[in-house]
Amino acid sequence: MRDDTTIDHQTGDAPLPGDGTPYRYQAVERHVTAMVEAGAIGLGDRLPSLRTLSANLGVSISTVNQAYVELERKGVIESRPRSGFFVRRPAVRLPRTERAESGRHDGPRPVTRSGLIQTVLESVGRSDIVPLGVIAPGVELLPRKELSRIMAAVVRDDPARAMGYAPIPGDPELVRQIAFRSMEHGMATAPDEPVVTAGCMEALYLALRSVCRAGDTVLIQSPTYYCFLQLLETLGLRAVEIPSHPDGGVHPADLDRALCAYDIAACVLAPNFNNPDASLTPDAAKREIVSILARRAIPLVEDDVSTDLHFTPTRPGTYKQFDRAGLVLLCSSFSKTLAPGYRVGWMLPGRFRQKVLEIKATTNVSTSAPAQMAIAEYLRQGRMERHLKRLRTAIERQMDTMQLHLGRHFPPGTRVSHPAGGAVLWLQLPGGVDSVELFFRARARSIGIAPGAIFSTGDGFAGYIRLSCGAPFSDTLHHGIRTLGQMASAMLGGE
Amino acid sequence: MRDDTTIDHQTGDAPLPGDGTPYRYQAVERHVTAMVEAGAIGLGDRLPSLRTLSANLGVSISTVNQAYVELERKGVIESRPRSGFFVRRPAVRLPRTERAESGRHDGPRPVTRSGLIQTVLESVGRSDIVPLGVIAPGVELLPRKELSRIMAAVVRDDPARAMGYAPIPGDPELVRQIAFRSMEHGMATAPDEPVVTAGCMEALYLALRSVCRAGDTVLIQSPTYYCFLQLLETLGLRAVEIPSHPDGGVHPADLDRALCAYDIAACVLAPNFNNPDASLTPDAAKREIVSILARRAIPLVEDDVSTDLHFTPTRPGTYKQFDRAGLVLLCSSFSKTLAPGYRVGWMLPGRFRQKVLEIKATTNVSTSAPAQMAIAEYLRQGRMERHLKRLRTAIERQMDTMQLHLGRHFPPGTRVSHPAGGAVLWLQLPGGVDSVELFFRARARSIGIAPGAIFSTGDGFAGYIRLSCGAPFSDTLHHGIRTLGQMASAMLGGE
Repeated sequence: MRDDTTIDHQTGDAPLPGDGTPYRYQAVERHVTAMVEAGAIGLGDRLPSLRTLSANLGVSISTVNQAYVELERKGVIESRPRSGFFVRRPAVRLPRTERAESGRHDGPRPVTRSGLIQTVLESVGRSDIVPLGVIAPGVELLPRKELSRIMAAVVRDDPARAMGYAPIPGDPELVRQIAFRSMEHGMATAPDEPVVTAGCMEALYLALRSVCRAGDTVLIQSPTYYCFLQLLETLGLRAVEIPSHPDGGVHPADLDRALCAYDIAACVLAPNFNNPDASLTPDAAKREIVSILARRAIPLVEDDVSTDLHFTPTRPGTYKQFDRAGLVLLCSSFSKTLAPGYRVGWMLPGRFRQKVLEIKATTNVSTSAPAQMAIAEYLRQGRMERHLKRLRTAIERQMDTMQLHLGRHFPPGTRVSHPAGGAVLWLQLPGGVDSVELFFRARARSIGIAPGAIFSTGDGFAGYIRLSCGAPFSDTLHHGIRTLGQMASAMLGGE
Repeated sequence: MRDDTTIDHQTGDAPLPGDGTPYRYQAVERHVTAMVEAGAIGLGDRLPSLRTLSANLGVSISTVNQAYVELERKGVIESRPRSGFFVRRPAVRLPRTERAESGRHDGPRPVTRSGLIQTVLESVGRSDIVPLGVIAPGVELLPRKELSRIMAAVVRDDPARAMGYAPIPGDPELVRQIAFRSMEHGMATAPDEPVVTAGCMEALYLALRSVCRAGDTVLIQSPTYYCFLQLLETLGLRAVEIPSHPDGGVHPADLDRALCAYDIAACVLAPNFNNPDASLTPDAAKREIVSILARRAIPLVEDDVSTDLHFTPTRPGTYKQFDRAGLVLLCSSFSKTLAPGYRVGWMLPGRFRQKVLEIKATTNVSTSAPAQMAIAEYLRQGRMERHLKRLRTAIERQMDTMQLHLGRHFPPGTRVSHPAGGAVLWLQLPGGVDSVELFFRARARSIGIAPGAIFSTGDGFAGYIRLSCGAPFSDTLHHGIRTLGQMASAMLGGE
């Protein structure tokens, strides 16, 4: 999945040949995991000594040690004093999620998931709930001190700018930084195209209000982020769903068929690591989709919020970068990477910029100035890329650990997504387990999850759940996953 | 207009008997202004010496001196070395604005002012435009250092709270503080009723979306804040206007007649210091209006954003305080008093709280956490009332100065409002001066004003302009007013 070749800073080793992980200890870790999964080393078996494995793999002893420590942290192996390391349990990874066939359905539907979604959203900002439901990076992974120090400095240095209204399109320095980053990501963005918003949600809201009217039909991929559905519902829009394939994202042919069959006012698509199924639409398909939509002059609202969390060596492309007609409204934010609570996101609204500004002005005039200034300064100081690199590594590790624990605690027959980015896992529960029922049982024990039902207007995902991997793995999360697994097993047994 | 009896801290004098201004020097100032206005002292005349006036009025010499300095600052008198103070110009105050009869019209109208309004709004956050168009308190009047210091402290002390999502209804401490202040202002607010929003505009937006659907008709007072009209337009709502009387606000009988004639989904009313005409609806009328609406179960969206800027000794009442049915959605903010750019406002949404939260969640999830925390802490430290008192005094003085300069520079026949609160003046230009034309001419010279046409769906206010008094009086403002006056005179002469 990855093929960059960063040197392991802790050991100084060169990368293992043929393995694409950025750190050598991770390559060792995968090597050992593969041996366990293949049954080459069984439950209770002793692992090769540090010295032996070091010699066999041609890496330093400290690298092997780091890999063993990591595997112990994940619960795969355990150290016994004066005896070495032993396999604690088989490192079972669940098989991949499959596409729910019954999730496909025909015709526009009114959206009516609001009640359940609101119940799920009640855990936003609540620290008493095990954070597997709402996606937000654990605050431990965010540059808290750095950003807080910058915030303190910018409001002190320029209190007038912090207290006065920012211009409607956003703080000029932040607009400049966003335009610059977008160009770096391959998009032909004019320096004044970006519009700063209060998070990606507001960007999506502004985009939909700019291109649709109540009663219109919007094409979405299925499953899709539940907040879109709630947004469609509150705006009185109807949805036509086309499948999101776990391994290929949106197929242009599916889109084309839907456009022929229905009067579609706009599309809402996630280019990469679609929330919840982590599907990625290949760049060739993106290009084709943009071209199909351009022929019909249909706007595309692009939710690009997950792309910065790619585990792939390079950043996958966006729909926007293939857009020549100004029909793509790219929406993104700093909420999944830098500071959820600051509520700062942005749009590249293409030809709809004036309309977007009009709606922004009548929604809340402009975005909170201190938050914009702090993030602008953070970007200006060039801190973002280093932070993102650290964050991606951390989230990939968390996801890896979660997958191992899911394999240990969930009933046989459970399947899970194998994402190449993003911060969520999408679980397909074995037959008979209703995710809404599981959601309410978990909630009664202060565990937050997102039931599959809220990710579609249809019933295709009744047996799925989405788990957030944003928070660093902890005893609380471990306990939460064990409890969920037990509940799912009990429900499978008819309880 | 005022009858509290604060001691003048600079002179230690007791108040002048029979005068209601809080400071003795202001009483002296009014006494002198009255003499000038009455013609008792004419242009070029010498004023009584400090000693004489001090003896006559029974106040200290320093109090008289302070009054003279203030009058000199306003351009009413001038000091000549070794000669004393002289009347520089007659202190002409323009007569009061009258109600534009042609502003009344029948039947719901679609709202179509958006283009012009957006042109007016383009000056938001721009420091290169003379700030007479957009209302915002001058940053010099805001507790910049205090609030910036608090912001720096709260993000440093609790970075996790600042970076994580705030709960959808708002930061709990801020919600508590807002509930407490609302109770102090006579409203029966439950501790968990407030919903924090990104400014008053967002509160109004959430309120209208919670109680209306596209195509509905909303009753508004005329003239009304132009951003309401733009909001109605973007939400596809129609407007029925009833008169806002400069001296009595909204008459219950007018409201009742409109409700009988049209199918009204909701009302939007400003209880006090209506923007732009500064009208105040008496509390008895408020009570009657709330009761008429309760009989028909029609929601009332109350824009309470100006009330904190009362020059009256006590805070006038709100519609909300007479509401027993939960039909009033009070909307307000800290933007006109504390920190416009922070974008923090609130609602007391009554029985519509759930719906409001649903729309807030799909608009931008929650309000920027650092801004909420800083304002919560500012309130918690009990700093707000002292600041408001200072701010009100400053704005009243600015308005006073503006009125004198308007009298000096605008053509005869011009009328102006005499507000008891708020931060705007409403000018009625003599016949033949078109305010939209004046707006564009002023804009070409980087002077911002708000033309009357944008405050109504009808044509009744084509000859009015609104001037903001938020910024401290300065040479720039003086120059702006003089230029505007010259332009108006030229237009009156047919240029």
